[in-house]
Amino acid sequence: MRRERSREALREGLRAVTELLDKQEVLDALAHRQEGPKRELLEELQHRQSLAALRHRVRDLHPADLAYIVEALPSTRRVLVFRQLDPRRQADVLLELGDAERGGLMGLLSRDELLAAVREMDADDLAWVADALPDELRPDVYASLDHASAARLLSAHAYADGTVGALMEEPPATVRDDATLADVLATLRSRPALPAQTDAVFVVDGRGLFKGVLRLAALVQGDPAARVGDELSPGSVSFDPGDPARDAAQAFERYDLVSAPVVDERGKLVGRIAVDAVLDFLRDSAEREALQRAGLAGDEDLFAGLVESARNRWPWLAINLVTAFFASRVIGAFSGTIERLVALASLMPIVASVGGNTGNQTVALIVRALALDQVREGTVRHLLLKESRIALLNGAVWGGLMGLFALLLYGSPALGLVMAAAMTLNMGVAAVGGVLAPLALARAGRDPAQGSSVLLTFATDAMGFFIFLGLAAVFLG
Amino acid sequence: MRRERSREALREGLRAVTELLDKQEVLDALAHRQEGPKRELLEELQHRQSLAALRHRVRDLHPADLAYIVEALPSTRRVLVFRQLDPRRQADVLLELGDAERGGLMGLLSRDELLAAVREMDADDLAWVADALPDELRPDVYASLDHASAARLLSAHAYADGTVGALMEEPPATVRDDATLADVLATLRSRPALPAQTDAVFVVDGRGLFKGVLRLAALVQGDPAARVGDELSPGSVSFDPGDPARDAAQAFERYDLVSAPVVDERGKLVGRIAVDAVLDFLRDSAEREALQRAGLAGDEDLFAGLVESARNRWPWLAINLVTAFFASRVIGAFSGTIERLVALASLMPIVASVGGNTGNQTVALIVRALALDQVREGTVRHLLLKESRIALLNGAVWGGLMGLFALLLYGSPALGLVMAAAMTLNMGVAAVGGVLAPLALARAGRDPAQGSSVLLTFATDAMGFFIFLGLAAVFLG
Repeated sequence: MRRERSREALREGLRAVTELLDKQEVLDALAHRQEGPKRELLEELQHRQSLAALRHRVRDLHPADLAYIVEALPSTRRVLVFRQLDPRRQADVLLELGDAERGGLMGLLSRDELLAAVREMDADDLAWVADALPDELRPDVYASLDHASAARLLSAHAYADGTVGALMEEPPATVRDDATLADVLATLRSRPALPAQTDAVFVVDGRGLFKGVLRLAALVQGDPAARVGDELSPGSVSFDPGDPARDAAQAFERYDLVSAPVVDERGKLVGRIAVDAVLDFLRDSAEREALQRAGLAGDEDLFAGLVESARNRWPWLAINLVTAFFASRVIGAFSGTIERLVALASLMPIVASVGGNTGNQTVALIVRALALDQVREGTVRHLLLKESRIALLNGAVWGGLMGLFALLLYGSPALGLVMAAAMTLNMGVAAVGGVLAPLALARAGRDPAQGSSVLLTFATDAMGFFIFLGLAAVFLG
Repeated sequence: MRRERSREALREGLRAVTELLDKQEVLDALAHRQEGPKRELLEELQHRQSLAALRHRVRDLHPADLAYIVEALPSTRRVLVFRQLDPRRQADVLLELGDAERGGLMGLLSRDELLAAVREMDADDLAWVADALPDELRPDVYASLDHASAARLLSAHAYADGTVGALMEEPPATVRDDATLADVLATLRSRPALPAQTDAVFVVDGRGLFKGVLRLAALVQGDPAARVGDELSPGSVSFDPGDPARDAAQAFERYDLVSAPVVDERGKLVGRIAVDAVLDFLRDSAEREALQRAGLAGDEDLFAGLVESARNRWPWLAINLVTAFFASRVIGAFSGTIERLVALASLMPIVASVGGNTGNQTVALIVRALALDQVREGTVRHLLLKESRIALLNGAVWGGLMGLFALLLYGSPALGLVMAAAMTLNMGVAAVGGVLAPLALARAGRDPAQGSSVLLTFATDAMGFFIFLGLAAVFLG
């Protein structure tokens, strides 16, 4: 009864598939090396047998598990495993794959294979994979749709990425507000099975206008003679297709929703959004953010090509070179000072590095506060003041310690004082920059999680070198 | 019907509450300044009036929205707003607050206030807030629990943070596998309302052993005469209370679950886990990770005290100082070389910084691959090879460019060549370090997202300085 779906079970499935693929490749290699028709026939039989074993192994796996296994394989093996599935399951696996992996796999399939799989999809599915669909296939795919599906696909395309409309799926069964619960039970019994993650049906009036949400629990537990209109969930949340997906995700988290209706501005029910779409959206956003924070423009398939992968890192490298170059020129301006006291060259990276790190702590706190919507006009002054105080406190403690080290290493009290003062000041720069950089980016409509760290490190590097070498030029020159 | 729950509506609520609080404070200040009993009476009346307005304003807010507003206020105002709620809603708000904010607020309440709110909680709620409960209150709180709740609370405490057991709540209605759907419908109608996020009831046999899951949709749509045992969901997923919460969260994402049974090793149903707990867990983990990546040990309330906040940053500062100090000693070892050619001092941070940044790109990719469980023995060699090739390619392109800059700036072809070679080599160090650091941490059972960046930056700084200055000492000395 209990299905073991743990990580280990998945790994075990992957290992089994990999073994079968290994066997397959050995057989292929043998068949290439051997000669004589008899031998070939033998190999051919073995080959078929191992393919059958592979097909058997993948037959009962959940599409999500299959997608996991496919993603863990190099391209040629991905195609081989994928071809062992019937088109219906191929469609399911395509839907479960990551964007980069789906695009890669679809690019390797033949036109007919792709068409067979895509024809198994409904309009919501098609909207989901449409970006990876080659242009020349679109007419064939769209021609096979009925009118309602075509309309649905078009409307799905009408909503931009990152809106509720893009996460929306077809509304499930709707019921009339003047029916009784018994009517609803009878009607639902005659309809096709409700989709997964259905915790409620949506209620419309005679004109098709959205009236509210009837929880299945209320339907099951309510008096069969009660009117639907009297059993609606109080305070249900609905969304507009143009609402930002991020707001919808926050509402799902905040109000513990399972599914919610999407209603257009005329009050008509146009779809529903379910918690699985929200989970996927949150997961995708988190992954994209983690990559973008490191300066990786797009999603990168672990098995992507070399040049493509190298290029993915170029914009960041370019920015990094420009800022590093600028910091380098700051140092260059003080080359006379460094020539007179070469100890400065070895101490200056400490000032810059500690400033960068404390500043990034502040950035992390502010980015989190922005995401939780805790930053308001009144709080900015408070935050600046607080972070500056912490910087001065930490600067005094740790800057003092480093000053002591400098004194002990180089025997110069003046150098120690300059070191302590520069570290304290640069931590002040880090505090102010750490508060202001994310706020400025957020106000400019940019993602503060992405650019703040570059801006901040630029400031703490350049200012760190400038403050330390400047103080040294004045007091030690 | 449609409730506007957007960000703007929440901000509006917060603004209104803040205004009322401002008014309140002005009145308080006036009352302090004025004298004479008549004046006082007048102020007192106004004071009461504005408190009533505040109470009115917060009365209809969703507890999650109230928690949002409370978190956005400084401590004294938090208490004032909180005191306007009845104990039942106070309990709800406490449950919705973030860990740091809940602890702070509970510390400010009187013993009686706290007891009143906590007495409104059931065993699941109590387990959730238990960490913030002062020790001296525990006997009073626990004494008021009935036997079943006390047992439930004890068992909730038995599971470590980060396990399914810690996210588990009491199982909702269970039904017998030999009942008919009509029986179930009749039984459920006589029971208390099913909890939110109930998409299914759990099925047990005569001995109380877990048999499977009956979806409410199946209950509603099935033949009333059918036996429950024949209508179970195929392939339902169940968890063990000791399973890692992270695995359960992955299963919820993978298989689009709304709720799932938790079954102990004897096959007895001990609880359920619902998607809201999973969403909270994912959100908490993501936030904690973002803060930890920046070296912030614990969750930090935006309005926490100065010393507490400063201390939160010390462990990271200490590590950073040690690594920076080490890198500084590497430079110190080459002070003779720098003295002869001071241009080295201004170019060396470029080599270290670019290495650190490209390495962190690799780290981000590997950490993501680890989180998605895509890294296996076979792939490590593949990844090392691929990242090294990318590093050499990018090193040749961008290192060459920087070498050209160095040549133009300082007029020395040898310096340009050293620069280009050092950048390429350090990008190789970054590639290898970027692959191996997260893998080593993961193998040691540590969180790769947290420590990899420190390790990597340490390597690229120290090695960057060493390679660049070493090459310079050999070829330019």
